[in-house]
Amino acid sequence: MELNRRTLLASASAVSAAAVAGPLISSVPTAAQTAPAGKQAPAFYRYKIGSFEVTSVNDGVARFPLADTFVRNVKKEEVQKALAEAYLPTDVMTIWFNPTLINTGSRLILIDTGMGEPKGPVGHLRPNLAAAGIDTKAIDTVIISHFHGDHINGIRNGAGEVNYPNAEIMVPAAEWAFWMSDDNMNKAPEAMKGAFGNVRRVFKGLEDKVKKYDAGKEIAPGLTSIATYGHTPGHVSYALANGNDRVLIQSDVTNNPHLFVTNPGWHVQFDQDAAAAEATRRKFYDMAATDKLLVAGFHFPFPSTGHIEKAGSGYRFVPSNWNPAL
Amino acid sequence: MELNRRTLLASASAVSAAAVAGPLISSVPTAAQTAPAGKQAPAFYRYKIGSFEVTSVNDGVARFPLADTFVRNVKKEEVQKALAEAYLPTDVMTIWFNPTLINTGSRLILIDTGMGEPKGPVGHLRPNLAAAGIDTKAIDTVIISHFHGDHINGIRNGAGEVNYPNAEIMVPAAEWAFWMSDDNMNKAPEAMKGAFGNVRRVFKGLEDKVKKYDAGKEIAPGLTSIATYGHTPGHVSYALANGNDRVLIQSDVTNNPHLFVTNPGWHVQFDQDAAAAEATRRKFYDMAATDKLLVAGFHFPFPSTGHIEKAGSGYRFVPSNWNPAL
Repeated sequence: MELNRRTLLASASAVSAAAVAGPLISSVPTAAQTAPAGKQAPAFYRYKIGSFEVTSVNDGVARFPLADTFVRNVKKEEVQKALAEAYLPTDVMTIWFNPTLINTGSRLILIDTGMGEPKGPVGHLRPNLAAAGIDTKAIDTVIISHFHGDHINGIRNGAGEVNYPNAEIMVPAAEWAFWMSDDNMNKAPEAMKGAFGNVRRVFKGLEDKVKKYDAGKEIAPGLTSIATYGHTPGHVSYALANGNDRVLIQSDVTNNPHLFVTNPGWHVQFDQDAAAAEATRRKFYDMAATDKLLVAGFHFPFPSTGHIEKAGSGYRFVPSNWNPAL
Repeated sequence: MELNRRTLLASASAVSAAAVAGPLISSVPTAAQTAPAGKQAPAFYRYKIGSFEVTSVNDGVARFPLADTFVRNVKKEEVQKALAEAYLPTDVMTIWFNPTLINTGSRLILIDTGMGEPKGPVGHLRPNLAAAGIDTKAIDTVIISHFHGDHINGIRNGAGEVNYPNAEIMVPAAEWAFWMSDDNMNKAPEAMKGAFGNVRRVFKGLEDKVKKYDAGKEIAPGLTSIATYGHTPGHVSYALANGNDRVLIQSDVTNNPHLFVTNPGWHVQFDQDAAAAEATRRKFYDMAATDKLLVAGFHFPFPSTGHIEKAGSGYRFVPSNWNPAL
């Protein structure tokens, strides 16, 4: 066949039963038919930071109708254009969820816990941890970046039991102070009261058990917390360093990078202080781009790591090349 | 901690034992230490083309010293610059290998067979097929795109036995004619004689069993062969179409996309007719970009699919967003 547009676009509708049965289609031995798997491969991905083994473990993907106000300060049509340019569906919003597991050799640390019980395409952290050979009982530290449900709900299972029974749970002190304030809850807009209630549900009975950490501290070996306030009042990111390697674990500095890395001035509806979140984002990415730092994003497409480059008035997200052999 | 460059770049060397043992580092219960896995997750990735389930199955990655002549018509320094811009090591060349498995519902088709036995970071197709739940005995059709070793060697195992005992093996007629010609072998440059010998080794005893197919034909349900000559004299790519979906399975229209999609005029040392390969490449990508077609590349980074966009005087490879839920 000549290489031309017609042949490349040959319609499947042209595939008649006769053609399929034609002389060039082999008649094969009657091998047992293998059923399609019907589901994706377990999604976990390992990379090294010095001697540390880091694993991006996917909790799933959410797809929901794209609201006019999903990006507060941009028209829906512009958002749809950006989604199309990333080869994503334009009628729904696509959001990935990727907690990070760190094995330092002596410590097993999970950063953020996902949605909780599997429900449709989300809540798959624990099955994916199991696929990666990780026993939740062996996780000794759970670190929470901020108190939105997709980060904290997985602390508990559907029966309300703690999923990581041997782990110390570490939470940002500023985040705890904000969400646990009855005063803040009472004066919060109606739409946010559910989030306050959810925080209280998740941490009920754990009040004296959780360890509060400050930003700007080394909170575990090689892991430094960084104040990246704006998305929430106590939102924290991390720098993990070992040997000559480092990765910035950005948490929710941006949501879907095809929208908000590309357009750092766009305000996702989840940013509680949009102006502060934008200022944080610009500062964070300016540094990440200047120093060509590896960045892991909770909401980046799995396997969730990549680089940030300056491009036009914003940035470009360059996903990492998959490394099949550590 | 203030968000500034110093804090983001905080050196790991500053992490003293005292800091690690400091008050902010939790003393955790003595959970059993989980050993690092030390290896990557099994690399297979599923996507749908209409009702067909397609699986990219990784055979591994090769890394070898970057020769001055790896790109024949470009200085090594330029190649290293392109590698650095893709965040790849610049002292070695990185090449991924990704055969494609197609489950049509009634047929189980493998396109290309990888390097053969596992050896370091390559030759992992069969373990990855097993991880994907695929019994090699259930594969009823093996289709070969061209006769280079990384595509045909996996037809046999280390003992010389055929790995896919129930499969009909289909090969491009033009490719067979070229490599099986003693005349071509005798007049080939010394450096290519090994490749001729390898083709004969792999297909010895299968001469009457293999089915030769032409380019420009529907060779399996929904799968059309496309002549993309140049890389080898009979090199073939494919369009797979079902329902409203299609994917171009490009085989070796390019090697590493960060070099040769970006710079279609660069001539990789593996292209046997560099001018023809370049002409094919430009034509193929011009169409893929114009029609925004999904492209699967044997040598693209796993999971091997993406889109091609016009950029400057060449193209840009845009890897697909991982879909955690089919």
